[in-house]
Amino acid sequence: MIVVPLIERKREGGALTPEEWSALVAEYTAGRIPDYQMAALLMAVCLRGLERQELAALTDAMLASGQRLAFDGWATPRVDKHSTGGVGDKVSLVLAPLVAACGVAVPMMSGRGLGHTGGTLDKLEAIPGFRTTLSLAEAKAQLMRLGVTLIGQTPEIAPADRRLYALRDVTGTVEAIPLIAASIMSKKLAEGLSALVLDVKRGSGAFLPELNQALELARTMIALGEDRGCPTVALVTAMDRPLGRACGNALETEEAILALRGEGPPDLMEVTYALGAEMLIAAGAEKSAAAARKRLVGALNAGLAAEKFEQVIEAQGGNPGIVEDPATLPQAQAVEVFSAPRTGVVNRVVPRVIGRAVVAMGGGRRTVDDTIDPTVGFVITAKPGDKVLQGEPIASVFARDAAGIEAGFDALRRGIEIGDKLVERPLPLVSHRVTGAGVEELR
Amino acid sequence: MIVVPLIERKREGGALTPEEWSALVAEYTAGRIPDYQMAALLMAVCLRGLERQELAALTDAMLASGQRLAFDGWATPRVDKHSTGGVGDKVSLVLAPLVAACGVAVPMMSGRGLGHTGGTLDKLEAIPGFRTTLSLAEAKAQLMRLGVTLIGQTPEIAPADRRLYALRDVTGTVEAIPLIAASIMSKKLAEGLSALVLDVKRGSGAFLPELNQALELARTMIALGEDRGCPTVALVTAMDRPLGRACGNALETEEAILALRGEGPPDLMEVTYALGAEMLIAAGAEKSAAAARKRLVGALNAGLAAEKFEQVIEAQGGNPGIVEDPATLPQAQAVEVFSAPRTGVVNRVVPRVIGRAVVAMGGGRRTVDDTIDPTVGFVITAKPGDKVLQGEPIASVFARDAAGIEAGFDALRRGIEIGDKLVERPLPLVSHRVTGAGVEELR
Repeated sequence: MIVVPLIERKREGGALTPEEWSALVAEYTAGRIPDYQMAALLMAVCLRGLERQELAALTDAMLASGQRLAFDGWATPRVDKHSTGGVGDKVSLVLAPLVAACGVAVPMMSGRGLGHTGGTLDKLEAIPGFRTTLSLAEAKAQLMRLGVTLIGQTPEIAPADRRLYALRDVTGTVEAIPLIAASIMSKKLAEGLSALVLDVKRGSGAFLPELNQALELARTMIALGEDRGCPTVALVTAMDRPLGRACGNALETEEAILALRGEGPPDLMEVTYALGAEMLIAAGAEKSAAAARKRLVGALNAGLAAEKFEQVIEAQGGNPGIVEDPATLPQAQAVEVFSAPRTGVVNRVVPRVIGRAVVAMGGGRRTVDDTIDPTVGFVITAKPGDKVLQGEPIASVFARDAAGIEAGFDALRRGIEIGDKLVERPLPLVSHRVTGAGVEELR
Repeated sequence: MIVVPLIERKREGGALTPEEWSALVAEYTAGRIPDYQMAALLMAVCLRGLERQELAALTDAMLASGQRLAFDGWATPRVDKHSTGGVGDKVSLVLAPLVAACGVAVPMMSGRGLGHTGGTLDKLEAIPGFRTTLSLAEAKAQLMRLGVTLIGQTPEIAPADRRLYALRDVTGTVEAIPLIAASIMSKKLAEGLSALVLDVKRGSGAFLPELNQALELARTMIALGEDRGCPTVALVTAMDRPLGRACGNALETEEAILALRGEGPPDLMEVTYALGAEMLIAAGAEKSAAAARKRLVGALNAGLAAEKFEQVIEAQGGNPGIVEDPATLPQAQAVEVFSAPRTGVVNRVVPRVIGRAVVAMGGGRRTVDDTIDPTVGFVITAKPGDKVLQGEPIASVFARDAAGIEAGFDALRRGIEIGDKLVERPLPLVSHRVTGAGVEELR
C-alpha cells in the first residue's frame, strides 16, 4: 500500500475515501504500515480533522478489526455507560450493579488510569482476587446470567484501536476529538449494545476542559452511535473538582461500596442517578426521568445494588466480603489528617493536582509496566464553596510512608485553594443533555 | 528525553526552545528518539510552522551534527549555488567550472534526482569513471588546487539532515518551507562558504510552484544564511517548462558540455550567466552585473570553463575526453524523432510529465536502490510560444527499447500542448532577485 500520497492529502486538508481508511487500518494492524507513517498521518488528523464519512469509515474499520458480541434472541436490553475520565470518578462501580439490579444488562468494559485520571479497572483490582480479564465468551455467559460484567477490553475487541491508541499515547496525538470518538465508539459498538450513555466531563480536570469541546465530542460520538443503530445520549458533567470525596483506587472502591449501601456523597449520587436514569430510559425500562430515578433509588435502598455487586465480585474471583466489611480492602501504611491552613472559603479543589499526586504517591502508572499501590490517595471532605476554619480537618492523606504523606500534604496545600470569598462558582454538576436532536441545558 | 510534551506543544502552535531543538536533533541522530515520535513532530511542523528562532536552532543543530570545512588563511573566496530542483536543470555542470575559471572557488555539493526532477550527481555519473564521493579532506585539497569540486554530500556533513530527510521522504513531510530551508542551509553552511547564491524555481515543475511560496523559501534561506555570516542572495527562475533542450542524465551532460563550448541553448545560458554574475559579485570579484557577465562570457568563449571542467573530470576519476568528444558518453540503444501532431502554437511543455517519463523509462529512481540508465531521456527543441507545423520534428526520444520509445512518445503527446494560439504566457526566465533587503522584480 502506497501511504505517502494519503498522508500528503490529509496534510493539505483533503479527505481520504472510506476504502482508503479501511485499508490503512487493516494494513497497519497487520504490521504492514510502519509506525512512523501512521504517526505522521495521525498528527495530520489532529490538525486537519476528519470529515464525517472519514470518521465513520475509521470507526468501522477499527470495529471490524475484532469481534463483536451478539445476543440474538436474548430479550434483555443491554446498555453501557462511558465516561471521558476524571479524578474521583468511581461512578461505574456504583452504576453498573445498580442498573443491572433494575433489570437492564450492563456489559461494562472499562479502562485503566490515564495521565492524572483514575481507571475503573485499577479500582476493581483493589478488591483482592478480582479478575478483570475475562474472555469474550466468559463475559457473555456472565452477562446473561448476572446482568452485569465489569471487565477490561478483551483482546478480541478492536485490536486496531489498541495498536493505534498505544501509538497515539507516545506521539502526542491523543487529544483529537475524532480520534477520541473513534477509539471509544469502536470498542463500545463491539459490545452489542441496545443503547449507550456517555458521561462527557468538562472543567480543568477533564481531558477536554472547554464546554464547546465537550459538546463537540458528545455530538461526534452520538452521530457515530446512532448511524450504526446504537441510540446514544450524553450528559455533560463537572470535572472542575474531584467527584465524591475519595481519590485513589481502594479508597474509591470503598466509597463506591458506601454509595451502594446508601451512604454515598451527594455529588457522586447525583451523577450516578442522572446517568442511571438515562440508561433505564434508553433501555425502554422507564419512560420518564422521574420514574427512572425513583426505581434506581428504590433498588439501591432495598440493597439490591449492593447485592448485585457482591454477585459480580464473586463471579469474577474477588472476595465479596468487602461489600459487608470494606475494612478488608487493602489499607494504607500511613494516614494523616490535613487541616485547613487558614480560615476562609474553599475556592477550588484542583483535580489535576490531586490526580497527579495520587500517581506520584504510587497509585497510578507512569509507564505501562508500573504496578499500582491501591492503598494510597486522599479523602477530601472540603468542597468548593465550603466555609472552613483554620485548623479544621478537611482531608486525609493515605500513603506508603512519611515521604508519601509529605507529598500528599504538599499536593493538598497547592490543590485546595482557600480565599476570603468565592471568586468562581463551581460548574453545575450535570449541566447539559445531548442527543441526536440537539443540546438541552439542564435547569 | 521526554518527547511527547514537545510534540504536543508544537501541535498546539507553540514554540520549542533552541535547547529543545538542539536536544531533539542530537537524540534523534543518536537513535534515542524513535522515528514515530519524530514523524509526528515533523508533521506538526508542516502544519504549524517554525518561529524564526526555532528554525535557526534546528538548522544549527543539523549543522552541528557533522563537520564543517574551514579554510583559515586561504584568501580565495568560496561561493556555491543551490537550486531547488527542476527538469532539465543542468546549470551546475556549466556554472561551477565557469565561475571557478573566473578565480572564485566553487565547493559544489549536489544531490541526486528526487521525484520528477533530475540530480546533478546522476548527470555527473553519466561520465564514465566519474567519482562523486570524495572524503571531506579530498574535497578540500581538490578545491584548493583546482578551485572546484563536484561532489555529493559527504557522510561527515550534517548526518542529522540525512536521517531527517530520509524520514520526511516516507512520511509526507517533505513540502514544508522551514524544513526545506533547514535541510538545504545546514549542508551549505558546512561548506565554509564566503557567500551563497540560490536558484529558487517556481512554476508547475517546481516543488513549490507558486511565486509566494518561492519567495518565502528564498527569504527563509537568506535569513538563515545571513544570520550565520554567509551572505546569501536568491534568483527566482522559471520552471514552467524544462530548462534547455535535454532531459535525461547523459543527454543533459552532453548539453552542458556544448554550453561550455559556447553552443548552449539561450535559456540555459541566460540562467547560468545570471547566477554566475551573482556569484562573482557575492565573492567580491566584480562590482556590477554587467562587468560580471562580461567576464563570464569572456572566460567561456576563451575555453577556460571547458578546460576547468576537463580538469575536474580528470581529478575525480572520469574520462576528460568526453569534453572534446561528447559522443563517448553512453548512448541510448533506441532513438526516434517525434513530430508535431498538429500545426499550431506550443502552449506548454509540462515539466512534470517529461520528468516522470524520464524516471519511468529508467533514467531515475523509484526506490533508493534503483540503478539509473543514464542514456534515456528527451531532447525537446520546441519551446512554449514556438509555432510548429504538423509533421515537423520537435523532439527526440532516447530509450532502451521499443517499449521505452513508446512510453516516451506517449509522454511527449501529453506533455507538449499545441493549440491555435498562445493561451498563457510562459514565466519570465529570471524574474526576481531576493536579498536580505527585499525582493526586486527584474524586468
